[in-house]
Amino acid sequence: MESLNTKEKIETLIKPSELLDHWQGHRGLTRRVIEAFPEKEFFEYSIGGMRPAAQLIQEMMDVSTGGIREMAGGEAGEIAGHAVKATSIADTLAIWDENTAELFENLAKIPADKFHDRILSFGQYEGTIWGNIFYFLDNEIHHRAQAYVYLRSLGIEPPAFWDR
Amino acid sequence: MESLNTKEKIETLIKPSELLDHWQGHRGLTRRVIEAFPEKEFFEYSIGGMRPAAQLIQEMMDVSTGGIREMAGGEAGEIAGHAVKATSIADTLAIWDENTAELFENLAKIPADKFHDRILSFGQYEGTIWGNIFYFLDNEIHHRAQAYVYLRSLGIEPPAFWDR
Repeated sequence: MESLNTKEKIETLIKPSELLDHWQGHRGLTRRVIEAFPEKEFFEYSIGGMRPAAQLIQEMMDVSTGGIREMAGGEAGEIAGHAVKATSIADTLAIWDENTAELFENLAKIPADKFHDRILSFGQYEGTIWGNIFYFLDNEIHHRAQAYVYLRSLGIEPPAFWDR
Repeated sequence: MESLNTKEKIETLIKPSELLDHWQGHRGLTRRVIEAFPEKEFFEYSIGGMRPAAQLIQEMMDVSTGGIREMAGGEAGEIAGHAVKATSIADTLAIWDENTAELFENLAKIPADKFHDRILSFGQYEGTIWGNIFYFLDNEIHHRAQAYVYLRSLGIEPPAFWDR
């Protein structure tokens, strides 16, 4: 672990590099949740009128990678619809890996002194950079947990939540 | 918003006071999820052999409030079992409010320069203070999202995830 000097320690709960590690752990877990699904159920199975796992995963990718791309100076892209691009789980994993690489490449580009700046994410969500980043990460945890229930309901043991 | 000086800005993604606000928003949302359940289903309904919402909520309380109490110098308490203490939703909300007040009282007691210290949470989970804190918060988001699926499956619209 890098050591922090006293001044930094006083106000620093978490540094950008630590957020990156933390999020990478979550992304790895979400990838294993995708892998745990049977092919057909990943695209079709749902409970209570909710969206299938494939669409929840597509939303995570659109929201997180689009939002972070925008923070790094690029175009956020579409925030509505979340039309599923993949047609198989293998395809989803390839898109997921590409999307994840882009996410962390852009996250590392955000100047650390900007995290408390206020922005309008996707042209409509007002808040700080850190607040929006946590929204994206929380959104991944939230929808992934719903996919956990789909798996349990299909009789499949999901990967352990703590294994990241 | 408090302003940060340049030195702080460089390494500070999120400050302890910001984490506290962020988590309070999540706690408020979880409280509204508890309120959304019908009495009987809160204690009994489940999907795929998972635990009922009452037990997921009890786990959140035991883990977060116990873990943070320990960081503040107190006793963590039991980490296994999560026997549900409440017998009604009103009762659950009263316990939740008391538990939440204790959580934030103790969170504010943790010296800010300790967040990067390594600890053994509940005598067994090794990691930094910040890492353990995020584990607790992520655990709340994870299990609350499962309660969302229970609600949807019961035909009940859960409170909006973004409303915190």
